[in-house]
Amino acid sequence: MLIRKLDPETFVHAYNVDLQMLYPWEGVVEPPFGAAWAVLAAGESTKPHAHQECETFFIARGQGVFSIDGERVEVGPGAVTFHEPFHNHVLTNTSDSEDLLFLTVFWEDKGRWAADPEAVAEHHREHGDDGDHPHAAAPPPRAADAAAAQAAAIERELVTAAPPTPNGDLHLGHLAGPYLCGDVYARARRLQGVDAHFVFGSDDNSIYVKTCGEGLGLGPQQTATRFTDAIEETLALAGVATTALPRPNASPHHRELTRHFFRTLYERGALVEQEAPAPWCEGCGRFLFEAYVRGRCPHCGDGVLGQTCESCGRVHDARDVVDAVCAQCGAVPGMRPLRRLVFPLSRHAGFLRDYYRRVAMNHHLRALVEGVLADGPPDVAVTHPTDWGIEVPVAGWDDQRIYVWLEMAPRYFAYARHVNDERGVDAGWERFWKAPEARVVQFFGYDNSFYYGMLLPALFHAFDPDLRLPAAFVGNEFYRLDGAKFSTTRDHRILGRDLLAEAPRDAVRFYLAWSAPEREQTNFTRQEFRATVRRELLAGWQGWIADLGRRLAAGFDGRVPATGDWTGEHRRFYHRLEELLRDAGEAYAAEGFSVQRATRVLAELVREARRFAAGEQHWDSVPSRGEERRTGIALEALAAKLSGLLAAPVMPDAADRLWRGLGYAAGPEESSLSTAGAWRDALDWLPSGQAAPLAEPLLPGLAEYLGGGE
Amino acid sequence: MLIRKLDPETFVHAYNVDLQMLYPWEGVVEPPFGAAWAVLAAGESTKPHAHQECETFFIARGQGVFSIDGERVEVGPGAVTFHEPFHNHVLTNTSDSEDLLFLTVFWEDKGRWAADPEAVAEHHREHGDDGDHPHAAAPPPRAADAAAAQAAAIERELVTAAPPTPNGDLHLGHLAGPYLCGDVYARARRLQGVDAHFVFGSDDNSIYVKTCGEGLGLGPQQTATRFTDAIEETLALAGVATTALPRPNASPHHRELTRHFFRTLYERGALVEQEAPAPWCEGCGRFLFEAYVRGRCPHCGDGVLGQTCESCGRVHDARDVVDAVCAQCGAVPGMRPLRRLVFPLSRHAGFLRDYYRRVAMNHHLRALVEGVLADGPPDVAVTHPTDWGIEVPVAGWDDQRIYVWLEMAPRYFAYARHVNDERGVDAGWERFWKAPEARVVQFFGYDNSFYYGMLLPALFHAFDPDLRLPAAFVGNEFYRLDGAKFSTTRDHRILGRDLLAEAPRDAVRFYLAWSAPEREQTNFTRQEFRATVRRELLAGWQGWIADLGRRLAAGFDGRVPATGDWTGEHRRFYHRLEELLRDAGEAYAAEGFSVQRATRVLAELVREARRFAAGEQHWDSVPSRGEERRTGIALEALAAKLSGLLAAPVMPDAADRLWRGLGYAAGPEESSLSTAGAWRDALDWLPSGQAAPLAEPLLPGLAEYLGGGE
Repeated sequence: MLIRKLDPETFVHAYNVDLQMLYPWEGVVEPPFGAAWAVLAAGESTKPHAHQECETFFIARGQGVFSIDGERVEVGPGAVTFHEPFHNHVLTNTSDSEDLLFLTVFWEDKGRWAADPEAVAEHHREHGDDGDHPHAAAPPPRAADAAAAQAAAIERELVTAAPPTPNGDLHLGHLAGPYLCGDVYARARRLQGVDAHFVFGSDDNSIYVKTCGEGLGLGPQQTATRFTDAIEETLALAGVATTALPRPNASPHHRELTRHFFRTLYERGALVEQEAPAPWCEGCGRFLFEAYVRGRCPHCGDGVLGQTCESCGRVHDARDVVDAVCAQCGAVPGMRPLRRLVFPLSRHAGFLRDYYRRVAMNHHLRALVEGVLADGPPDVAVTHPTDWGIEVPVAGWDDQRIYVWLEMAPRYFAYARHVNDERGVDAGWERFWKAPEARVVQFFGYDNSFYYGMLLPALFHAFDPDLRLPAAFVGNEFYRLDGAKFSTTRDHRILGRDLLAEAPRDAVRFYLAWSAPEREQTNFTRQEFRATVRRELLAGWQGWIADLGRRLAAGFDGRVPATGDWTGEHRRFYHRLEELLRDAGEAYAAEGFSVQRATRVLAELVREARRFAAGEQHWDSVPSRGEERRTGIALEALAAKLSGLLAAPVMPDAADRLWRGLGYAAGPEESSLSTAGAWRDALDWLPSGQAAPLAEPLLPGLAEYLGGGE
Repeated sequence: MLIRKLDPETFVHAYNVDLQMLYPWEGVVEPPFGAAWAVLAAGESTKPHAHQECETFFIARGQGVFSIDGERVEVGPGAVTFHEPFHNHVLTNTSDSEDLLFLTVFWEDKGRWAADPEAVAEHHREHGDDGDHPHAAAPPPRAADAAAAQAAAIERELVTAAPPTPNGDLHLGHLAGPYLCGDVYARARRLQGVDAHFVFGSDDNSIYVKTCGEGLGLGPQQTATRFTDAIEETLALAGVATTALPRPNASPHHRELTRHFFRTLYERGALVEQEAPAPWCEGCGRFLFEAYVRGRCPHCGDGVLGQTCESCGRVHDARDVVDAVCAQCGAVPGMRPLRRLVFPLSRHAGFLRDYYRRVAMNHHLRALVEGVLADGPPDVAVTHPTDWGIEVPVAGWDDQRIYVWLEMAPRYFAYARHVNDERGVDAGWERFWKAPEARVVQFFGYDNSFYYGMLLPALFHAFDPDLRLPAAFVGNEFYRLDGAKFSTTRDHRILGRDLLAEAPRDAVRFYLAWSAPEREQTNFTRQEFRATVRRELLAGWQGWIADLGRRLAAGFDGRVPATGDWTGEHRRFYHRLEELLRDAGEAYAAEGFSVQRATRVLAELVREARRFAAGEQHWDSVPSRGEERRTGIALEALAAKLSGLLAAPVMPDAADRLWRGLGYAAGPEESSLSTAGAWRDALDWLPSGQAAPLAEPLLPGLAEYLGGGE
């Protein structure tokens, strides 16, 4: 017999408890579970956490309470709890003097989670962390196609991108971020039968628009209009399909909803008056904030213009900018007292913590919001001393305007109204923001993380706790050009419209997706762009489809045959198509969204299909095996159809051309308008006898653009 | 969350304690252990007992003492004891008023007792099978993947490649075909726990060896020996790992088995005498066949040397060669009657049709065999009028020798014998050819299709209908060099040894696999080779692993941490690893075998892991999220381990280096020798605390080979 005592010397602190690891017991035994004593100090709570192991607590000493979805369950010595994988559980020591001692035992049971994380997550979302659900221990549902399962529950989605500031046209860095990705996502969802709408407006009331206009000798609204026109043109050239692209000051909804939103927050006491010193430029005769101030970030020390740091993602008040100067005249500002309305974000920390447990987001964003929560969330000024922007709908604030980032929250209600208007649906914004069959997914770049990840959810919650907040955030990092950051001032950039004038739109979209800055800064070079689209699209996809067209014409009168006899090779190829469809479904899902992966799934499908086709051609020499030959070509035509479906979100024109070339009356996107979505029928056979001329190249002009050689 | 309280109503009395059974928790969960609260009344002692389970006590409340061999150990709250199987342990409650509450957890660990039948018998004598001790639930069987399931059914495999003709060294085209692919396949099967052996000999008795020797002024055996030496060297340089590489005329089994095989066929009437006109060269004074005749294929019209057409894969008799000339002197031959033994293949057409329904093969091969069956299989001469080869073991045929393609069938029995010899197993060739737990998989190039796909199975069947014929054929097409066929005569070739002297072996293996001519002729260029290994191996795999090593060193003292808290991102990444493991399993399976796919699975794993790592780095800035950070790096280390496993069949040296760099005592291949195969444990975590220096590059010399730029 071996013995160990409870020994504070060996404690490690994690999850906000002191842990004495007991098993595995080094050099003694490695049981099929781990175990530790845990000591939770008086008044403390365990850190909310979720992991893959099953876990059980045995309470040995003290008194505590488990909090689950607002319910409280008291526990004392002898209590035993069981926690499913990935269930959040928070235990609080309710004593004000005595430790709470419990034993935790945990073990892995892959049957409960590993096979299908989405199903487990879905199960948990549906049932909450509610442990007394009698089926909590039932095995997760059969691994279903994640996208299909989601599509069944969600009927409509509002897909949003951060609004572009109309102080310049869009360059490739902008396009490769939220605009292309949001478009691809919304298209994929529509193919999956979801009534998904991509919508974002322009950010007309930003101070950056005003200062830009001053440089050009234009008024702020003139400036906004000019550049929004340019941005709209570029988006249209890039094939970014929005349901609406409302301009705030021309919208019938934006101003009214913003003022209502602000007033409601004010009346509920969510906004408070605060007087504090603020930087004042004597020469320019104004307070410095946002576009008016330049200096270094008080958090990371990097150079900043305004109050958001593009390097570390943190925000700060203008008064805290280090080595601040006036961005207009370069003078060092003094300080003057300034009275403003602020939104004390720290009041909403608890709500945000809860929210973060259920919203999907990447780890850069998650690390940022956790960091801000740990340091204490700031008070955010929601009015600014300027004459540009929406008037404050509260008496006594005529000298100030609503801060654009407060305007940003209600604009998403306005978007919902615009979508309704476009669709001829007489309904309020709640149709997208409160209905259980609807959800919101937001796309934005890392520099907007604080606002989308923290400020907006807290504002939404303060405005109306019954709102269904965004289900997923899809962030992106900066895209680089030839190894350096895109910069308009240094003219180190390629405008979207310029590349789109050179090369076929779908080739541009494909390469921006292939190289998208999803988790790290990625780089655009023309050389890589040309090499990649030559290999993957010209020689790859388009080459295969043209070859298939020739073989259909030569061997089958240009018509897709019915399947005949199957070999094992045929079955394996069909199985690959099923796998690739599933892979693409995962790549296009909001949780884990990855256009990098989606484009690679397409490339892999093309490689597999060409390899398969190379084997099939040999049937031509064996008349007695015409049935196998038919099966092979029917499978290849199915692969071609599938390639069009999987490519459609990224390359809608080419996908449309492909499906029409296969003899369909419409491409995958159009055909999905009238049905439950082409995705569901992805592996339905082409009708036998359907004429499939495949005469047109998938990407007209690509060969000419690339020229010979290279 | 589910909760139970300490409840005297549920107590059962056993071992002189009141037990509340906690686990298994009926209808909720069946963990790999059992657990119960135990209440020992004041002044009482537990009943002395011994059982097969390991057991641990956790003291929650009260005071007691353990008596062991006359010694006494006091215990109080927080004490933990561990009891080996069959150890007696008595606990006494030393209080005279207060209960002693402890938790008992017990589990079976057969490694600790099952090997000792005496202990088990002792246990049964003492306790019977009465089970009055609450027994631990046995660990649930692991969800078996396809590979593991296959491995369970098939215990050993003979993996063969077509024997190289020793009339020249191996060029890249040879290597990229059966030699690399068979090696990769056998390595993958060993990782999956199968006792797989790659074995092929040389084809010494081919007439091509004799004619080659004549050109060099060497005898045929001298020629065979010289080039087999060279081939063996090249295979060793390429890391092709054979269990044996027998030379037929030095083998203790080959000649004997061949003659036995021939004689048996003859005695069974499978070989018949036939007299027919045969081409005769007056000037050279010999019949023309195989290497002696040149002309055009009677099936497709392409140029042929000998009696097999490399273009259409068909074979023909020498007399049917169109526009035949003597390959030695160029004269047009006449015809003379020739008496030979032939194997009338058409007799076996029905058997072959049956066999083709169950054997895995690609469609090029399938189309060929179906075409031959449709046209009517030929009679194949099995003796030739020459003095080079094995003597015909039938009286009256002293002037002829056994045709090498008849010798080819029994040589696979000889291979089985050689494997047995190497492994020190005293068993006949039937161990691989008749045992239900064994199978044969054959690799060969398209030009050998007729022989492996038709002649050999029919010969095997005629020899012994109870043989278990090959389960799968893995064919390949020709590999091209700079767009044209490899050719020794035109010196349009790169010898394996030459490229292997320039570039690291694993890089060569990787690219030959990446571009392998699996279903169509593929092309080697140095430029593509360099670009691909630079992108996928140098910047990709090796770059990622080096980066992981730096991050482990900088942030974790170079040790792999245990997992902590999990986010959705973590779970999705784990799920991707499961998918990629399954993808690789499919790529390495004989049915659907594809090294092209296997290398792309590795590339995709690297891309996913790098993308995942880019997100994880942000935890560094959030001290409160150290648990998530640990999970991320533990997952990445698991991905690295998996990449080594999946790469091992193609890049064994790099995989070995990687696993050692991760702190394992051996690479995936070595570690699999003593266990059921590393594949089964592919997703088992690295032991926490394991030092993983990852100091050495995975492919030493690759960066130097590639140099800068390009």
